[in-house]
Amino acid sequence: MTAQQLDLTADAATLTEQLVNIESISLAELEIADAVEHALRALGHLEVTRIGNNVVARTDLARAERVVIAGHLDTVPLNDNLPARREGGLLHGLGTCDMKGGDAVMLRIAATVPEPNRDLTFIFYEAEEIAAVHNGLRKLAESNPELLAADFAILMEPSNAGVEAGCQGTLRVEVRTHGERAHSARSWKGVNAIHKAGAVLRLLDEYVPRKPVIDGLEYHEGLNAVFVSGGVAGNVVPDECVVEVNYRFAPDRSEAEAEAFAREFFAGYDVTVTDSAPGALPGLDRPAARAFLDVVGGPAAPKFGWTDVARFTALGVPAVNFGPGDPLLAHKQEEHVPVVDIERCEQVLTTWLTA
Amino acid sequence: MTAQQLDLTADAATLTEQLVNIESISLAELEIADAVEHALRALGHLEVTRIGNNVVARTDLARAERVVIAGHLDTVPLNDNLPARREGGLLHGLGTCDMKGGDAVMLRIAATVPEPNRDLTFIFYEAEEIAAVHNGLRKLAESNPELLAADFAILMEPSNAGVEAGCQGTLRVEVRTHGERAHSARSWKGVNAIHKAGAVLRLLDEYVPRKPVIDGLEYHEGLNAVFVSGGVAGNVVPDECVVEVNYRFAPDRSEAEAEAFAREFFAGYDVTVTDSAPGALPGLDRPAARAFLDVVGGPAAPKFGWTDVARFTALGVPAVNFGPGDPLLAHKQEEHVPVVDIERCEQVLTTWLTA
Repeated sequence: MTAQQLDLTADAATLTEQLVNIESISLAELEIADAVEHALRALGHLEVTRIGNNVVARTDLARAERVVIAGHLDTVPLNDNLPARREGGLLHGLGTCDMKGGDAVMLRIAATVPEPNRDLTFIFYEAEEIAAVHNGLRKLAESNPELLAADFAILMEPSNAGVEAGCQGTLRVEVRTHGERAHSARSWKGVNAIHKAGAVLRLLDEYVPRKPVIDGLEYHEGLNAVFVSGGVAGNVVPDECVVEVNYRFAPDRSEAEAEAFAREFFAGYDVTVTDSAPGALPGLDRPAARAFLDVVGGPAAPKFGWTDVARFTALGVPAVNFGPGDPLLAHKQEEHVPVVDIERCEQVLTTWLTA
Repeated sequence: MTAQQLDLTADAATLTEQLVNIESISLAELEIADAVEHALRALGHLEVTRIGNNVVARTDLARAERVVIAGHLDTVPLNDNLPARREGGLLHGLGTCDMKGGDAVMLRIAATVPEPNRDLTFIFYEAEEIAAVHNGLRKLAESNPELLAADFAILMEPSNAGVEAGCQGTLRVEVRTHGERAHSARSWKGVNAIHKAGAVLRLLDEYVPRKPVIDGLEYHEGLNAVFVSGGVAGNVVPDECVVEVNYRFAPDRSEAEAEAFAREFFAGYDVTVTDSAPGALPGLDRPAARAFLDVVGGPAAPKFGWTDVARFTALGVPAVNFGPGDPLLAHKQEEHVPVVDIERCEQVLTTWLTA
């Protein structure tokens, strides 16, 4: 497939299929970025900027509002699920759901709504599926923050073609217990650190999640051991055990508050923070968000997982997830997207941008 | 150092030093076995058999009783603790305690007691410190069981120059908990297997060890998690957790009884046996053992760790540990042996075999 082959006059599902068939595992987005850049430049009415394998395309119509519509171009690794395959109303294959269906909708809007009622900034970016250090949106926010400036942002991550607002934050801590080594044949000479971790796991088992309601959306926190490890040798009473805990916190808590909660929850234990990312408040009280919700119609839902909407929030731009496909299918071998979801997203955006 | 250089006319501590300075990490015992074989053959009064790096030397005086005296020739890996070094009354270095002090005593008895009151079988063997499949004593028991036949056996493993009788058995089981994976951002959709392991660890923490008295010796059982592991990814609720448990059981329990205990203790969990070795009853009621204890004088102590005495017990030969050095120093960088322990062991054996 060459960069020339994206056909923006095709329907969005066909375009999704074309995008899926350009393999673009994280850090190998050159070909798909070339194709997207080529197709957008050919439209003529957009100002196109290429930075790395990120492609930004903007209208410049001096509208009262500017909206960012963003989607990543990369996928998780191949899992015997290419090329794309249509079956009934479903399109199967790597990236169909996460998130080339959304990318296709963006390209269709770019092609079919040349004079939107709000100025648009389309951002197609690289390396969302891997460590944040590679994330194209993060890099653009640092190198060219002006390109991300907007009154509202829509991230076309899969959300069953409904609006998922805000996102929960995530904190990872290591909770360590300490003991004293001894030969297991004379175990009473030592102190077993793994046994002591039992009380840590019991605390986790008894945890009752907070479910705050924010802007009318009920969030749902979670506190889970994601790893546990300990042990020296098969005949040694171990002197250390590490429980790695992931705290997913509602966006009414800051990272600092989340850390304080974790430290208090595990009071008396040795706690080390290893990873942290803030949540994002839904921001549904902003005018741009309200207008968009009116067109979508259905109720918004809270976003539990962390997504790049948090990056927009950090820049002061209210943002929501709105894309075709079920987020629970992301990263699965059997990943797929309903064609009706793709069609609905295109229709909603077209209506909102041409009303 | 060459095979000619073991001097059996030197005192036992000097001889220990000579043995220590022949490096003999498990599976590299050729040189030390050559030296021992050479020295024993030179004595003239012993029938010497060499099988692999195992050396067996026997008197054949038609005595009423036959006694095996055994010691392994290998050591754990080097840890910057060679050559041997004397400091005050201590001899430092790899293998001083585990167990070349004992080997030296054996060589001294072989050299200085040519006409013992009991027939003697000295067994110097290879590969005790590694997986049982390599163990020289195990191999001899299979290939030449007649060489191990005896009324009583003394294993010269470190026991502070006192008698440690019998040994505890050891059982390893994996206790598994099962759950259901989910994204940690929606953890309530899954079941956390690590959290469930908390109850397993709590059982272990509340375990009260059995301390049965056998032949006047108080044993002390132990039930310890030696490893714990679980976890799929930093953002996944894990569906499996494995706690590896080591049960050290007193020799009044068979391996089957030990397994039954573990299965009942962890009733309701998925339990897999991964390793098992029987204990050995002290056998202090046998005449040969009693006569030996009379000469040693002090009270016998129970042996908590597993040693090769269990192999003799399995062959129907009552066996005890009796060797110089503190077993708690075995395998440690700072391993050492008191010269007085070596001297005492030599003296006790000489007295017993010449009375």
